[in-house]
Amino acid sequence: MRTPIDPSIVADQNEIRAAELKRDYQYLGEKLARQNINIETIKNKIAEFSVAIPSWGVGTGGTRFARFPMGGEPRNVFEKIEDCGVIQQLSKTTNTVSPHFPWDNVDDFNELREYAAAFGLGFDAVNSNTFQDQKEQKHSYKFGSLTHSDAATRQQAVDHNIEVIEAGKKLGSKALTVWVGDGSNFAGQQSFTNAFNHYLDSNAKIYAALPDDWQMFLEHKIFEPAFYSTVIQDWGSSLLAAQTLGEKCKCLVDLGHHAPNVNIEMIVARLHHAKKLGGFHFNDSKYGDDDLDSGSINPFQLFLIFNELVEAGARDAQFNPAYMMDQSHNVTDPIESLMNSADVISRTYARALLVDHKLLNQYQEENDALMAYNTLRSAYETDVSAIVQQARLEQGGAIDTIATYRASEYRKKVTEARPSSGNASSGIV
Amino acid sequence: MRTPIDPSIVADQNEIRAAELKRDYQYLGEKLARQNINIETIKNKIAEFSVAIPSWGVGTGGTRFARFPMGGEPRNVFEKIEDCGVIQQLSKTTNTVSPHFPWDNVDDFNELREYAAAFGLGFDAVNSNTFQDQKEQKHSYKFGSLTHSDAATRQQAVDHNIEVIEAGKKLGSKALTVWVGDGSNFAGQQSFTNAFNHYLDSNAKIYAALPDDWQMFLEHKIFEPAFYSTVIQDWGSSLLAAQTLGEKCKCLVDLGHHAPNVNIEMIVARLHHAKKLGGFHFNDSKYGDDDLDSGSINPFQLFLIFNELVEAGARDAQFNPAYMMDQSHNVTDPIESLMNSADVISRTYARALLVDHKLLNQYQEENDALMAYNTLRSAYETDVSAIVQQARLEQGGAIDTIATYRASEYRKKVTEARPSSGNASSGIV
Amino acid sequence: MRTPIDPSIVADQNEIRAAELKRDYQYLGEKLARQNINIETIKNKIAEFSVAIPSWGVGTGGTRFARFPMGGEPRNVFEKIEDCGVIQQLSKTTNTVSPHFPWDNVDDFNELREYAAAFGLGFDAVNSNTFQDQKEQKHSYKFGSLTHSDAATRQQAVDHNIEVIEAGKKLGSKALTVWVGDGSNFAGQQSFTNAFNHYLDSNAKIYAALPDDWQMFLEHKIFEPAFYSTVIQDWGSSLLAAQTLGEKCKCLVDLGHHAPNVNIEMIVARLHHAKKLGGFHFNDSKYGDDDLDSGSINPFQLFLIFNELVEAGARDAQFNPAYMMDQSHNVTDPIESLMNSADVISRTYARALLVDHKLLNQYQEENDALMAYNTLRSAYETDVSAIVQQARLEQGGAIDTIATYRASEYRKKVTEARPSSGNASSGIV
Amino acid sequence: MRTPIDPSIVADQNEIRAAELKRDYQYLGEKLARQNINIETIKNKIAEFSVAIPSWGVGTGGTRFARFPMGGEPRNVFEKIEDCGVIQQLSKTTNTVSPHFPWDNVDDFNELREYAAAFGLGFDAVNSNTFQDQKEQKHSYKFGSLTHSDAATRQQAVDHNIEVIEAGKKLGSKALTVWVGDGSNFAGQQSFTNAFNHYLDSNAKIYAALPDDWQMFLEHKIFEPAFYSTVIQDWGSSLLAAQTLGEKCKCLVDLGHHAPNVNIEMIVARLHHAKKLGGFHFNDSKYGDDDLDSGSINPFQLFLIFNELVEAGARDAQFNPAYMMDQSHNVTDPIESLMNSADVISRTYARALLVDHKLLNQYQEENDALMAYNTLRSAYETDVSAIVQQARLEQGGAIDTIATYRASEYRKKVTEARPSSGNASSGIV
Repeated sequence: MRTPIDPSIVADQNEIRAAELKRDYQYLGEKLARQNINIETIKNKIAEFSVAIPSWGVGTGGTRFARFPMGGEPRNVFEKIEDCGVIQQLSKTTNTVSPHFPWDNVDDFNELREYAAAFGLGFDAVNSNTFQDQKEQKHSYKFGSLTHSDAATRQQAVDHNIEVIEAGKKLGSKALTVWVGDGSNFAGQQSFTNAFNHYLDSNAKIYAALPDDWQMFLEHKIFEPAFYSTVIQDWGSSLLAAQTLGEKCKCLVDLGHHAPNVNIEMIVARLHHAKKLGGFHFNDSKYGDDDLDSGSINPFQLFLIFNELVEAGARDAQFNPAYMMDQSHNVTDPIESLMNSADVISRTYARALLVDHKLLNQYQEENDALMAYNTLRSAYETDVSAIVQQARLEQGGAIDTIATYRASEYRKKVTEARPSSGNASSGIV
Repeated sequence: MRTPIDPSIVADQNEIRAAELKRDYQYLGEKLARQNINIETIKNKIAEFSVAIPSWGVGTGGTRFARFPMGGEPRNVFEKIEDCGVIQQLSKTTNTVSPHFPWDNVDDFNELREYAAAFGLGFDAVNSNTFQDQKEQKHSYKFGSLTHSDAATRQQAVDHNIEVIEAGKKLGSKALTVWVGDGSNFAGQQSFTNAFNHYLDSNAKIYAALPDDWQMFLEHKIFEPAFYSTVIQDWGSSLLAAQTLGEKCKCLVDLGHHAPNVNIEMIVARLHHAKKLGGFHFNDSKYGDDDLDSGSINPFQLFLIFNELVEAGARDAQFNPAYMMDQSHNVTDPIESLMNSADVISRTYARALLVDHKLLNQYQEENDALMAYNTLRSAYETDVSAIVQQARLEQGGAIDTIATYRASEYRKKVTEARPSSGNASSGIV
Repeated sequence: MRTPIDPSIVADQNEIRAAELKRDYQYLGEKLARQNINIETIKNKIAEFSVAIPSWGVGTGGTRFARFPMGGEPRNVFEKIEDCGVIQQLSKTTNTVSPHFPWDNVDDFNELREYAAAFGLGFDAVNSNTFQDQKEQKHSYKFGSLTHSDAATRQQAVDHNIEVIEAGKKLGSKALTVWVGDGSNFAGQQSFTNAFNHYLDSNAKIYAALPDDWQMFLEHKIFEPAFYSTVIQDWGSSLLAAQTLGEKCKCLVDLGHHAPNVNIEMIVARLHHAKKLGGFHFNDSKYGDDDLDSGSINPFQLFLIFNELVEAGARDAQFNPAYMMDQSHNVTDPIESLMNSADVISRTYARALLVDHKLLNQYQEENDALMAYNTLRSAYETDVSAIVQQARLEQGGAIDTIATYRASEYRKKVTEARPSSGNASSGIV
Repeated sequence: MRTPIDPSIVADQNEIRAAELKRDYQYLGEKLARQNINIETIKNKIAEFSVAIPSWGVGTGGTRFARFPMGGEPRNVFEKIEDCGVIQQLSKTTNTVSPHFPWDNVDDFNELREYAAAFGLGFDAVNSNTFQDQKEQKHSYKFGSLTHSDAATRQQAVDHNIEVIEAGKKLGSKALTVWVGDGSNFAGQQSFTNAFNHYLDSNAKIYAALPDDWQMFLEHKIFEPAFYSTVIQDWGSSLLAAQTLGEKCKCLVDLGHHAPNVNIEMIVARLHHAKKLGGFHFNDSKYGDDDLDSGSINPFQLFLIFNELVEAGARDAQFNPAYMMDQSHNVTDPIESLMNSADVISRTYARALLVDHKLLNQYQEENDALMAYNTLRSAYETDVSAIVQQARLEQGGAIDTIATYRASEYRKKVTEARPSSGNASSGIV
């Protein structure tokens, strides 16, 4: 196994924190035992948990106003994989990468697959891109892709998605995520009904190319890049489309793609009821699709979402949604943000696992609103640091991922090894 | 036909305005002719158009803080019908009333039906109420009704809805509108999944009691009275429920029941695509479910909704949604607000009828966003006053409904004839 | 001192939990010591902290649709004080009551003051009410109070506020909170400029009646009960008014009175910069002014607000804002909600006290965004239960306030002792 | 005077529409005369009205996802001026350009000034840019500019603003607009208080360099590019800063920079009350800072804003705010969008001029909410096309700006004359 960070640095850093972790883990175990919770059971579930890294996430993001790059940004998919390898080596909760095409196109996908495997990384859902024009592309997506008024443009977008599936097959992926920014900036610009029909027709062609053991995820978004209307603007449209397309087609929930104030955890429950909950893009937001680090704005909301996921899993043993971080790292080292977010997500999952669902259900039946809430609050307020740190430690990761990464001076090294090519971005600004 | 306003007053008031109207109508006809639009065709469609009055709307509304009543408020359903009769006599676009139970319960529904008929009024969708407790009610709705954790409470709510259908049959109604405020104020208070299952089970029982030629409308609302979660919080949940319940079950869109920024006209298009668009509650809002007068905050949005409705009608000859005003009149004479809103809604419909859909479609196909928008803008900016005034005049209504109503001194008369019973409200504060 | 809950019940309940608390407190002390934090220092600050109970908060709240009362609701201000006494006896963080007039008017304010003192309760800011009409009131507030277009109505509202100051003087209060719902439901209904000028003129008269050692708090709110415009709609208008009125006039921040997405903690910082931060109304909200229990929707936001308050206190030794809970308890026992919220607020304050501001400042200076955030996160994720429980225990309160209250069967007792008077509400529905 | 569009084309196009315009203008004159309004007075005010074109607005905009350029985009400020000349030639309501630096830097500003003058164009407020890094810039603005924690970076941003003032002096400008995107993406990243103090200190240095007859406009924005906090996030912070900086410093309102649901027309009134209303950036938005064409989403809101401006002008003869369009044209020809928006803005101003303020005030005094609203509605629903078309015609512009522009084939010509330089953008994507 390749270890981009020298294992001795990891070991040294863990040594510094081992005694305190032992003490914290022991105390937490004792405290949870009072509630008849076995800390080892929770820790094992955390150890099994994994969330995918988006290949574009290891580059610095930006806004329409500017992008402020940092040194050592990956210049191709192999360097992205190397950075993902750092994240996985230290955090041990990110054993897959979700690639994006055409950004991650290579001549030899087998080589890429093996390269990633050497870092302990597999490939999660593949992502198509029909929201940007590529050089030498025949038809522009300025006015849409899968929903464009012109049939040839739609077909071009369909063809691209089918190529992405082909790439994914070689990489060992089992799912395609389709997100289109198609929509309009003016009332009247687009026929809502024609655009939706085009969406269904185009996706039916893509669906037809899907291997039997694959899933197709439809991602909705209320706005941006379209500012008056978006074809798949909410989970209602996403659900309608997924129902029309077939059993392998499901809905993907990105936490930042909703109208203000919307209760996202309830959408999770509804999509699960409809058997159409396919996966998640984790991030956080305060205003729009801010793509901030997971849990950094509203950590209680993330907990409530995980609470629904734990409930769904309890109801349905087959429940196995795809989890990915989809964040834009504009002011931090992306590797740090992704490790930190993996830590936050793991902690949140751990807290959700602490909820006494039998007791919660009893309070719900009795309409004891206060104690039902306090049941959640009690789990949420538990400090589960020791559990996720112990899970990392036992798997060879770092107790403190950020401190260990900084001690390794990885960023300094890649800044030297990867001279900037100027304007290159790893994808979405 | 009973005429609560002396017809000679109407005639006198119309006389004052007849010459100017003639001049305006003639000019507008000439202007529309340039665009190959026959003003008579538009006027006839306006004359045929009708929107229901909610029986509770003729009383003064309020907020959780206060209600400031005015003189002459109706004290029972017969007085409500009389007030609705004024609205219909002058505006001629409101030939049905939508009753609400148990508020509008009477011993003899045939008498009520005949009483209304004398004013030229029929009955639109009947509305149940399980968001308030009534005296002598066995189970409280404090923690829910159709979705309550207790089966007996759910059955009580089902039974009430079935009684409402029975009343509706006698009144000549053909639809039941079901709105429940059920939800929760705390995370954890309610199981999202159990509550939704209860909702489906309870409504299946109501649906089973529905006559063959009836429809059932499900109304969603993002929040209030529940402030953390609402069982039918958006059109996605409403759609899921309507799909489960059956063909006669459709979704009702209230303009004030959405999250901020949501594109409501797109929801209209999606529900029509899903063959589940049942009806509308017209009002306007700036912040929450403000229940302000239709078109008073965002008249362009109302126009865009009517544009979708005209398009849906052009696609589907059977398309015939139920239209109702659902407003809370806190600072105006409710009769005036309802007449004024009927005028605004008629004008908006008239503008939507002026849209050149063939031209619009051409611009859409060509992605000429600016001219597509200008096609809508041109229709929207047309002053259609003369059309709706002429339509009223020809049917015996008032050119200027507000001035005529004020000239009649109806409010003064009912203030004397209906001494206040103290705290009585006509329903929702 | 009067003890509405039998002290032996409190002692018995504490006995059950004493050993575990001892263990938890010892461990937390050890853990904090690693960060050079003395747990005793934190605990002492928590013990000194207090948040006022609004007198109306001990009654069941409601919405414009319905209010679902529970047994034993207080029927007058003395019974409200008794309920507040329970809250203070068990939680020991609520040693003042904020009264509301005319609801809490009595013939003998000295008697009321002494009655409260017997429960260990003093009086915080007094509140006026000009958003409802009272029986025998000469001028209606339907169209406004301090900003009404009619001078006599404005004067009536001014006079009421001056009476409230007089009552407050007798009760030992040192501040007046002015909130008006004045505004409009229609564009054009009110001149923004005239209304604001009236607001300033009316408040100048009230300000003139303010004793030298009093403060006047202006409370803003984006909407409700007015649904198009509100005279003091945001902190900008509140600031302008407070600047105009004088040094004793400051702004009060209610957490639920802002537009969606607004960064409230930043408003706290700005008002403190302007030397105009007067106080807080704690509650939480997801959609509008939901008046939910403090910290129950977005506890991290509450933490960030307390973080600003701790910083403000560190900058300015005189900083001493007024804290009050302003919640509507629609589905819980109000006494339970207020004790639970006091617990949540205390815990949040405790977490904010754990923030290493020196380290935070260093990361800020270095633009180390991730570690700055992690510095806050580390404090936020600390389980401080043991601190607030220990603080309560040492002052004679309950380790577990809810369990102790339930063991006392207080609600059952007052339900018997206070037969319902029918429709009586303790104030705002 | 240079005429980028052949005047004979303008004349030919006007000839096609002259007869109908004459008829429409005559009828409207007659209709307004009934209300005692002289159409000539209104038309003259429209003829005098002007709104500035932002120099960056004539290039195609974009989002963080993509920019889809069109042919003939201006490659330097002289080509931008030429495009602005087209807009002014046809619409006659845009006689100034607002330049942006360093984008519009030239060696000889006098040459630029004369070049613009030849097209009948002067220069409005100059804009600085410290939200992007320029090549060879010493300090990065990644973590802020005027508010950066580092003094040298702040000074660099101050120096840039002073250079912009110098450029503006040569161009004949009389105002500087300062907008900074400074803020943070993480809680804790930035000290709210330190950042605001830095903002005040830096701006005080800029203010000191301002000529006596200049104004300085501060522009606030709720979010983007910063996604957790923005230093000047709302009009409250903008007002505080403008008060601190001095009399020449005022606040600028961009219509897309507010939280959802906010009543912007009220902010206009409040800033005017505070004597701090400096200017406007016109555009429209549905979700965030969408920078859509003015009036295309909520035209009634734009009308209500102009209604406040007309009122402010009536109160204060010196009232003379700076008006500019600030739009991002992602899917239209920017020249078309700017001409169309100038038309929409002029029409909206014309409607606001029709409001009978004496009557409105009377209804306000009487609290006749319905008739106050109808007074606004009546003006808003008036079709004023003939007034703005006649004003353009009389000044030598085009009756129909879009049709005339298309007839000229200007876009085709510049597409040939200005071969694309590849990735060049005219500024903000």
